[in-house]
Amino acid sequence: MSGLDLARLRADTPGTAHGIHLNNAGASLMPRPVVEAVKAHLDLEAAWSGHGAAEREAERLAGVYASVARLIGAAPDEIALAESATRAWQMAFYALARGFRPGDRLLVGRQEYGANLIALRQVAAATGAVVEVIPAAPDGRIDVVALARMHDTRVRLIAAAAIPSNGGLVNPVAEIGALARAHGIPFLLDACQMVGQRPVDVAALGCDMLAATGRKFLRGPRGTGFLYVRRAWLDRLEPLMLDHFGAPLDGDGYRLRDDARRFETYEYDHAARLGLGAAVEYALDLGLDRIAARVGALATALRQGIAALPGATVHDLGPDPAGLVTVTLAGHDSAALRAALAQAGIAAGLSLRAAAPLDADARGLPPLVRLSPHVFNSADEIGRALEILARLAQGKIQS
Amino acid sequence: MSGLDLARLRADTPGTAHGIHLNNAGASLMPRPVVEAVKAHLDLEAAWSGHGAAEREAERLAGVYASVARLIGAAPDEIALAESATRAWQMAFYALARGFRPGDRLLVGRQEYGANLIALRQVAAATGAVVEVIPAAPDGRIDVVALARMHDTRVRLIAAAAIPSNGGLVNPVAEIGALARAHGIPFLLDACQMVGQRPVDVAALGCDMLAATGRKFLRGPRGTGFLYVRRAWLDRLEPLMLDHFGAPLDGDGYRLRDDARRFETYEYDHAARLGLGAAVEYALDLGLDRIAARVGALATALRQGIAALPGATVHDLGPDPAGLVTVTLAGHDSAALRAALAQAGIAAGLSLRAAAPLDADARGLPPLVRLSPHVFNSADEIGRALEILARLAQGKIQS
Repeated sequence: MSGLDLARLRADTPGTAHGIHLNNAGASLMPRPVVEAVKAHLDLEAAWSGHGAAEREAERLAGVYASVARLIGAAPDEIALAESATRAWQMAFYALARGFRPGDRLLVGRQEYGANLIALRQVAAATGAVVEVIPAAPDGRIDVVALARMHDTRVRLIAAAAIPSNGGLVNPVAEIGALARAHGIPFLLDACQMVGQRPVDVAALGCDMLAATGRKFLRGPRGTGFLYVRRAWLDRLEPLMLDHFGAPLDGDGYRLRDDARRFETYEYDHAARLGLGAAVEYALDLGLDRIAARVGALATALRQGIAALPGATVHDLGPDPAGLVTVTLAGHDSAALRAALAQAGIAAGLSLRAAAPLDADARGLPPLVRLSPHVFNSADEIGRALEILARLAQGKIQS
Repeated sequence: MSGLDLARLRADTPGTAHGIHLNNAGASLMPRPVVEAVKAHLDLEAAWSGHGAAEREAERLAGVYASVARLIGAAPDEIALAESATRAWQMAFYALARGFRPGDRLLVGRQEYGANLIALRQVAAATGAVVEVIPAAPDGRIDVVALARMHDTRVRLIAAAAIPSNGGLVNPVAEIGALARAHGIPFLLDACQMVGQRPVDVAALGCDMLAATGRKFLRGPRGTGFLYVRRAWLDRLEPLMLDHFGAPLDGDGYRLRDDARRFETYEYDHAARLGLGAAVEYALDLGLDRIAARVGALATALRQGIAALPGATVHDLGPDPAGLVTVTLAGHDSAALRAALAQAGIAAGLSLRAAAPLDADARGLPPLVRLSPHVFNSADEIGRALEILARLAQGKIQS
């Protein structure tokens, strides 16, 4: 158990009483301290109003930046909190896009999240910049040698997913980061599936900007996310949308804040952000190394068990795959398969083309059932999921 | 009591037990049904994960659009929910700004909210459009005759606050709307202080876009707001930032959603939005006419009482002022005055230049103490606030 206490983890997690939750890559189960942090602040707001509560909890709210910074090895002033990873990613990307010119090249991993691709397409159409897909190596990961060959003076962005939404693949982020840094190209990392699942150190990864969500492996509330912007890039980026918090009045103009909070607005959901802070502290208390080891072990057990089932195909690529196990079962529609699992008390995800369209098209992927364990899952639960999948594979129950 | 049951209103409002809340223009006190709606969804998310809970509450989440639409006389597909009024306003404004050209004229009320002004300045600097201030009439309101005279073919926007942040002024919104409609100029209304305080009917007001927040007179949770976009404008506006929810993939491009949710993203805080829906339903149940009458009566009592105090100046302009009462007391710094009120158990707001900089500069306004009652305030509470202010005015207690 890598030093983790399963009984305590499950006692901390009310959702474990309601079935087998294997959709942590979609949205995990909040542990009790997270729910309590959100509710406590709601109660404070009900008692003292949103402003009165914010005054009383100013220190704790400031502490969320320190927690997030500690989680990823950044400085607190390099962190902006956001209402989603998408908004966090957009805040960095559209700020960069202010400088794009016709013919500029935006290099993007084949596994990029669908939301980001829409933004890339919109900006390309508006600016004349060109989105180019970085080839994948035979093992499915971003081909760093091919990426190096793509370099020229028109490259304005490298965007990649650390771990994509549609499988266990882990991209060679540090190698991409080293290349980007060597050429002074901004490297925007989507770390939605990595943060909370594995240790993240922005210095080691070499990313200039990183976006992540609260609700997945980090186990925070919905409506939370964050953006990291490396200090050296902060001073060069003006957000595409501003208010008087991110950029206070200055004479007839405005002056951008010195820190990453220039990407924020004055108003936000304080309760949810305190929940995010509690989630980060909870993960740090457990230890990201221990979390990674346990998620990895459970995912490996699940993946190996599924691979042995008749008619099952595991679709995860790359060495040392992460805790996203994607599968199809011959003769079974994946949506129906997911529904059959739900019927049996097992929450799974469904990975559709829209999540990673370039990768889905390149690989001809059908919809996939995605199983993603977390530290609170027991070996018994993995066994039960495999048993149900085996009965579905053998036609003993219908999907 | 205009048909409202004060005892029930106070029993519904846990915060009334903690002091005299007269900062409803800053952030009001959530009624119990709002807090319960948020918490109930958090519990559902803790039990079933964010995605499982969303599936279970899909109907209720859809119902929030219908509630907001009913509140302002719009159609549900003309409503986008947002994490703040600022973001809602930005979504409309920056979409319009995609079409701005050098020399385009953006007409803005003198009372415009500071956050919006920063965005206007940023866009003006980026596009060469020019921000022009609509003169105020002698009574302080937007001068509609002057506005009519400003019209020419280069006018691309009229932006105004229905009720500004820094006083009881109520702008002649319907007259502005009629002018804008006659010339086909988009009219973007900031209704943050009006929604939840007075009846709002977008058809009667003639606005093309309206932004509002949840946390003020509407008594919703922090981190909530909404945007209305009139159907005729929806089809002409592409949001400045997009994801795969607002604009799903379509071949090599993307296709904007048909409804106002093109201004949203896939991820959001479901619990907070359900709280917003509960707040809207609560206000509709009370009746906006009744709320307006009661807030108006309490504000009038407060305003008249303050005007009679030695050394007190009431700063609210215009006929039939709304429930924002702004005051300075000779010899008292407003921040210290607010702190003294807090010490006496009275929560008030502080209105600084940044909230409405053009108006503050034009009128030479110092910081103001802002008192804003709501339906749950009692006549006794107003009397107590006046008594404390009188003692401060008479130097019997120090600020």
